[in-house]
Amino acid sequence: MRQDGAESAPGHSLTFSEDLRRVADSLNACVDELLPLPDGPEQRVVEAMRYSALNGGKRLRPFLTIASADLFEVPRAHSLRAGAAVEMVHCYSLIHDDLPAMDDDDMRRGRPTCHKAFDEATAILAGDALLTQAFSVLSDDATHPNGDTRAKIIATLADAAGAAGMVGGQMLDLMVEQSDMAEEDVERLQALKTGRLLAAPCLIGGLLGQADADTLESLDAYGSCLGAAFQITDDLLDLEATESDLGKATGKDAAAGKVTFVSLHGPERARNRAKTLVDQAVAALSRFGDAAEPLRAAAAFTVSRRS
Amino acid sequence: MRQDGAESAPGHSLTFSEDLRRVADSLNACVDELLPLPDGPEQRVVEAMRYSALNGGKRLRPFLTIASADLFEVPRAHSLRAGAAVEMVHCYSLIHDDLPAMDDDDMRRGRPTCHKAFDEATAILAGDALLTQAFSVLSDDATHPNGDTRAKIIATLADAAGAAGMVGGQMLDLMVEQSDMAEEDVERLQALKTGRLLAAPCLIGGLLGQADADTLESLDAYGSCLGAAFQITDDLLDLEATESDLGKATGKDAAAGKVTFVSLHGPERARNRAKTLVDQAVAALSRFGDAAEPLRAAAAFTVSRRS
Repeated sequence: MRQDGAESAPGHSLTFSEDLRRVADSLNACVDELLPLPDGPEQRVVEAMRYSALNGGKRLRPFLTIASADLFEVPRAHSLRAGAAVEMVHCYSLIHDDLPAMDDDDMRRGRPTCHKAFDEATAILAGDALLTQAFSVLSDDATHPNGDTRAKIIATLADAAGAAGMVGGQMLDLMVEQSDMAEEDVERLQALKTGRLLAAPCLIGGLLGQADADTLESLDAYGSCLGAAFQITDDLLDLEATESDLGKATGKDAAAGKVTFVSLHGPERARNRAKTLVDQAVAALSRFGDAAEPLRAAAAFTVSRRS
Repeated sequence: MRQDGAESAPGHSLTFSEDLRRVADSLNACVDELLPLPDGPEQRVVEAMRYSALNGGKRLRPFLTIASADLFEVPRAHSLRAGAAVEMVHCYSLIHDDLPAMDDDDMRRGRPTCHKAFDEATAILAGDALLTQAFSVLSDDATHPNGDTRAKIIATLADAAGAAGMVGGQMLDLMVEQSDMAEEDVERLQALKTGRLLAAPCLIGGLLGQADADTLESLDAYGSCLGAAFQITDDLLDLEATESDLGKATGKDAAAGKVTFVSLHGPERARNRAKTLVDQAVAALSRFGDAAEPLRAAAAFTVSRRS
């Protein structure tokens, strides 16, 4: 039973991009509420958090959280908060990855990166505080009435984001530039760096809906395939899109000599691989019937997007 | 009922420093277990996490968690894990605070800081992953069987560590060097930067023990006073101790023109203020009787320590 009838679910009647924009609007309002500006000079760090977390991202990860939760008719108020937490983790990772000591990027989504708009110390702290705030949001009973469910969601997000997930992937990625990598290592890197934080929102949607283990496994399989397709598409866009399409520097992977699926096999085979992964993602949704249409559309979007 | 009789509680029969060392030994074994080295080149980030989290710290925060939990006869296995999570957050904050963009410190506890022993990117990621791992540890039912209790503990730690707590305090601290600060702002800075992460372990001990609101308030009052006394003592040590006492550079506050209670009022008044705060911390423990002796000893230790 949907408990917040005022807000319509992502559905067939709208195109996917309209769906995505509507979720992004709700998500932005939720993040805005979850990051109030405090009094005092330390509000600078919250300004930096807001600068990076309210910067017009696509909000694909919250969309996946919400569309997965919708399969189980989870109240939108819950899935929005969980989606906001996932997005905070994503935004923290972008702030830290952009730092001079890491990928050293000046532009992100068409605007100066956080350490350029503020300074390095503020950017480090803003990332730290966004990561911390994500867990604060998830721990609150406004996200789910059941404490065990909240704890499971926190475990899922922490495992996906930590040393055995996203952070481990970024560590690997920084080391690739100094060494040759075998193909299986490239796939592992991408599964860790991008895949885990695209599969986690799907799992979290299922956890919000108290899904059983088999159902969670389907959502995990969907998210993992989607994540892999997303990363190959990112690498293709880095090669083929213009800076104004992406709002950030392009061609950096090749310049840095990074090994990706694209550099190993060329754009044509990469594109085919991404399409196969999307088919696998969609196949994993079979148990959900029509209700999973928004997730199918999201899978198609990951490889058709231009930015 | 204590469920792990093999391990003795901190008690009167040992001196405080022996108590502290015994807890530190158990804590180190627990942290060691919670940070296993993975296979693959990304293990570099876990090596950096272990380098910084297993570096011979005093473990005062875990001691406070465990001694507070002991008031309610919480199984040591639970309070050790919670203490390890608190310590991971403390260690992450030290790694990030030491970075060149922040306090730019080369030495910590007599060894090169994390970014000196590894590199800046690895240090940023190691801090991120320790913060994440702390929440992973707390979310696991091995820390407490009740999900609502785990969620409350996570909320308490996140609030103490985030923008309204420790990170906000570090932001303020970085801004002090550029501006004059009034006395009340100095006290607020120190309450945020150090105080919150010394009060949180006491509250977490109470939460593990399902303490009621009044009891939690007493523990919070104790921890807040102890935290303020701890920070004044830190500032006194920065002025008066030698580098070999502390294992890190001293005299940095004065060189940076930082405003502290010590710089505002001189060492004599600062010492008296710290003693008054210890008395207040001890007074807040009256409801616990003899069982709170380890916490009383910890309060006395915060101002008598030489490092």
